[in-house]
Amino acid sequence: MQTLHIIKIGGNILDSPLKLESFLQDFATLPEPKLLIHGGGKIASTIGQKLGIEPNMVEGRRITDAETLKLVTMVYAGLVNKNVVAQLQSMNCNAIGLTGADANIIPATKRPVKQIDYGFVGDVAGPEAVNAPILDTFLKSGITPVCAPLTHDGQGSLLNTNADTIASVLATAMAHLYQVKLIYCFEKKGVLQDAEDDDSVIPAIDSAYYRELKEKGIVTLGMIPKLDNAFAALDLGVQAVVIGDAAEIKAIVAGEDAGTLIKL
Amino acid sequence: MQTLHIIKIGGNILDSPLKLESFLQDFATLPEPKLLIHGGGKIASTIGQKLGIEPNMVEGRRITDAETLKLVTMVYAGLVNKNVVAQLQSMNCNAIGLTGADANIIPATKRPVKQIDYGFVGDVAGPEAVNAPILDTFLKSGITPVCAPLTHDGQGSLLNTNADTIASVLATAMAHLYQVKLIYCFEKKGVLQDAEDDDSVIPAIDSAYYRELKEKGIVTLGMIPKLDNAFAALDLGVQAVVIGDAAEIKAIVAGEDAGTLIKL
Repeated sequence: MQTLHIIKIGGNILDSPLKLESFLQDFATLPEPKLLIHGGGKIASTIGQKLGIEPNMVEGRRITDAETLKLVTMVYAGLVNKNVVAQLQSMNCNAIGLTGADANIIPATKRPVKQIDYGFVGDVAGPEAVNAPILDTFLKSGITPVCAPLTHDGQGSLLNTNADTIASVLATAMAHLYQVKLIYCFEKKGVLQDAEDDDSVIPAIDSAYYRELKEKGIVTLGMIPKLDNAFAALDLGVQAVVIGDAAEIKAIVAGEDAGTLIKL
Repeated sequence: MQTLHIIKIGGNILDSPLKLESFLQDFATLPEPKLLIHGGGKIASTIGQKLGIEPNMVEGRRITDAETLKLVTMVYAGLVNKNVVAQLQSMNCNAIGLTGADANIIPATKRPVKQIDYGFVGDVAGPEAVNAPILDTFLKSGITPVCAPLTHDGQGSLLNTNADTIASVLATAMAHLYQVKLIYCFEKKGVLQDAEDDDSVIPAIDSAYYRELKEKGIVTLGMIPKLDNAFAALDLGVQAVVIGDAAEIKAIVAGEDAGTLIKL
């Protein structure tokens, strides 16, 4: 099977035009087929403030009310997504910008109200919900999908969905068609042994070592969902997951000594 | 050759959620293949005002400065486009939202500065610039493109482009692959003999009659670019052009007595 690289970039890159351009230059040169997922970044908050849309927090959780859904649809699917696509086009990468509603790629369900009503937040049932054949059609046509963190409920509403989750669900959905390498880019060079030391990157983590790291309190709260997502993806057939720095994407894809490799 | 319906809807439908939903219900039931182009509507002005982006007019012409480009990217490609897509998905129409940058469908050039600098406005060289094969791939995969009025310059920038122009350039580009029927939906039931009488629809206009209507001052300034676009499209191989009311789209597509048929 052919290798497919699925790469997720976070807010720290999107918030810096220079970092973003540099990353996209590298991304454009990576071998096809490939797929990019982007998160939101601070720009949604900045524009939201101007529009008078205040972050709606309930018990410390961010709620996607109707106004916030409009905001993230404008910023994630419009401003961020289309500018990334236009930039990639200028770098000879034939990108197409997608939300989960486009070509029904990622149907989801509105998160049920339990203790907290998260509002217009989408949960994806699992990889089998993803419309993998149409993504495969795009990839085989030499097109590189660029996915915004939005899904839809099949009843006319878009839904805000965590970009890490979208990355792992797309990776697992494509794993029966490709050897999928899933790469999470974030603001560090990898999972750190010492949170204060940016060079203390752990080269590899398997499930036994992950348990140990959690017991010792080395992996922090923010990393645990990322690593849980990574192991879940591996369990479902993704070949490799790497957590690392967007600035090192070429080395990571080349299999050089960069980032933290997650393996079963 | 198979018939392809290319339908352009204007601001008056987008500004009314009820009208829009009713139109999309009708559109979803139209036979495939089909393609939708939407304009902007007043929502961009409303959101622009909240963001403090004032319409920038020079000598009566609207200028797309950098802030306005961001605004229309958010509103046209994000808010409007993705909500139309999500609604169509709920109506069993497998829509995909696109700008001209996506899959490089409509490359354009920034309008050269002459007397007026229009800013980030894109002119499309002609139908040969359109990436018709990939649109054909979408249509053959049962996907319905929904196009926002934005193109790109191939150098990383999106460009604001008139939706009527996009409709006619797409129609002419697809005319060697399909029998294309191009339908412009606007706020009237068709081209009117008497601007004050909504029921005075002219059933058909050929080029001789068009000259006569212009000489008599019956077609107004706003209609002339639309009709010029229509005749240009017919000259370049589009089979039929109809100008009519979105509420009558089913009748228009069925070839019933609705709207104004433009013919050579």
